[in-house]
Amino acid sequence: MSQKIIQRLCVIGVGLIGGSLARGLKKAGVVTEVVGAGRNVAHLEKAKELGVIDSFETDISQAVKGCDMVVLAVPLGAMQSVFEQISSVITEEMIITDVGSAKASVVKAAQQAFKSLPDTLVPGHPIAGTEKSGVEASFAELFDNRRIILTPLETSSSEAVSKVRKMWQACGADVVETSIEHHDEVLAATSHLPHMLAYSLVDTLAKMDEKKEIFDFAAGGFRDFTRIASSDPEMWHDICISNKDALVTMIKKFTDDLELLAKAIEANDSVYLKEIFSRAKKARDEFCEDKNINDSPE
Amino acid sequence: MSQKIIQRLCVIGVGLIGGSLARGLKKAGVVTEVVGAGRNVAHLEKAKELGVIDSFETDISQAVKGCDMVVLAVPLGAMQSVFEQISSVITEEMIITDVGSAKASVVKAAQQAFKSLPDTLVPGHPIAGTEKSGVEASFAELFDNRRIILTPLETSSSEAVSKVRKMWQACGADVVETSIEHHDEVLAATSHLPHMLAYSLVDTLAKMDEKKEIFDFAAGGFRDFTRIASSDPEMWHDICISNKDALVTMIKKFTDDLELLAKAIEANDSVYLKEIFSRAKKARDEFCEDKNINDSPE
Repeated sequence: MSQKIIQRLCVIGVGLIGGSLARGLKKAGVVTEVVGAGRNVAHLEKAKELGVIDSFETDISQAVKGCDMVVLAVPLGAMQSVFEQISSVITEEMIITDVGSAKASVVKAAQQAFKSLPDTLVPGHPIAGTEKSGVEASFAELFDNRRIILTPLETSSSEAVSKVRKMWQACGADVVETSIEHHDEVLAATSHLPHMLAYSLVDTLAKMDEKKEIFDFAAGGFRDFTRIASSDPEMWHDICISNKDALVTMIKKFTDDLELLAKAIEANDSVYLKEIFSRAKKARDEFCEDKNINDSPE
Repeated sequence: MSQKIIQRLCVIGVGLIGGSLARGLKKAGVVTEVVGAGRNVAHLEKAKELGVIDSFETDISQAVKGCDMVVLAVPLGAMQSVFEQISSVITEEMIITDVGSAKASVVKAAQQAFKSLPDTLVPGHPIAGTEKSGVEASFAELFDNRRIILTPLETSSSEAVSKVRKMWQACGADVVETSIEHHDEVLAATSHLPHMLAYSLVDTLAKMDEKKEIFDFAAGGFRDFTRIASSDPEMWHDICISNKDALVTMIKKFTDDLELLAKAIEANDSVYLKEIFSRAKKARDEFCEDKNINDSPE
């Protein structure tokens, strides 16, 4: 029988991520009890029906009571409000973590809510997801072999970090630690910038007179390239606002490089063009080799 | 028994596209004989061995002799040289078409080689391909249900257009006609621009200090978004040079829009952000519905 890592877990926001975490921990047998919290009773009832949570509360400050682990799996824009709701009831035994895609903003929200940061707070970010959302889409294996980035604070106790780490590892995840600033820069580069480019490209094309033919003539490469433009607009609004500085810096860096590329095309600069395309192809092929991915362009 | 559309076909450049065309026509039973032409004897021998072609010639002007259909399936940068090699041997019975991804440059190459454009010339572009290249990767069904864009010239005879159309239709393709200018603009938008963005993004990230972590932390969305950056650098060099004007115009249009997006992020302009993301998601989802594609972001 597995040893329990968590006695009473509170998942605030029982959607795809929160639900999959609860399922994963239950499957691993490392949690005794899961309490769901959120605003939508129908969603919470569904989660209970599915066995993802054992009970639920719509009053978040009630839900966290007696919990030794609290996971905020709510949109970035809702973090501060949740921190405020739990600020008066947190205890020294209650480890608090989150799953937000931008970390500085979460820490700022915590600072504003808690005044002084509790040593039980360990921000985190699972690099995982699927095309679906909601608890119905959650599954125990979502974090299996996926990367979880923890960004412990100076105030975070080693016990708290260790417990959050063990929680994710019990779901099969590969847990790494980095600084908040570094996390936000790297995610701006690998995730937030590509989403902006995909959204912006699709919008630019959709505004053109030739819109119909443009989408009509588009092939598989376009489909893959723009897949992320079908992501949830509300979530990406929150991410933009939350990781503004790092994201705007990356957009500018990208735009500067793209301008150089446009100039090389205008100047028929074959050497520059072949170099950049070869370099990018090599980097991308190596990325796939490292990740053991077998795929190539159409 | 199928009626023959082509008696003697010459495929110049027997790679993925040229090879698949030959296979498709043979499978449909609409071609009597296929002659392969190219510079690489080993490749041509392989093509013969595979039954893709019946015979081959490395002297292109010899290869086309007696052919009623000649297809240039060579890189854009090689078009003019091929036109020059066949210019002295073309006849009124010899229909000539190509598969280049940019059409104005092919017509310019033909103009320079032929002086006056033959009425047998009908430029074309199959919107099809796979991740592989070379005759070994060719298959008869590559053009099945794929779009072929013909850009007939003012000089093109209706008989020539009709024969090229029938050739592609015999491979299961959906043949449409448009103007050269329109083709080049639309392809710049749907294919050439996205490739530039993917190449440029990967190169920008690969140059960063955090390169290792950046690729390490990248997830499925990044993989899909950058797939086209693994495309053939030589081919994309040729496309950039060949469709320079339309492509540079599109890059500028895109950059202007991206700058507005960056400004909205900087200004916390929630209305703008939600609008653009929602509009793009809607356009992208509609594109998938139209194409009957069931996919979404990770």
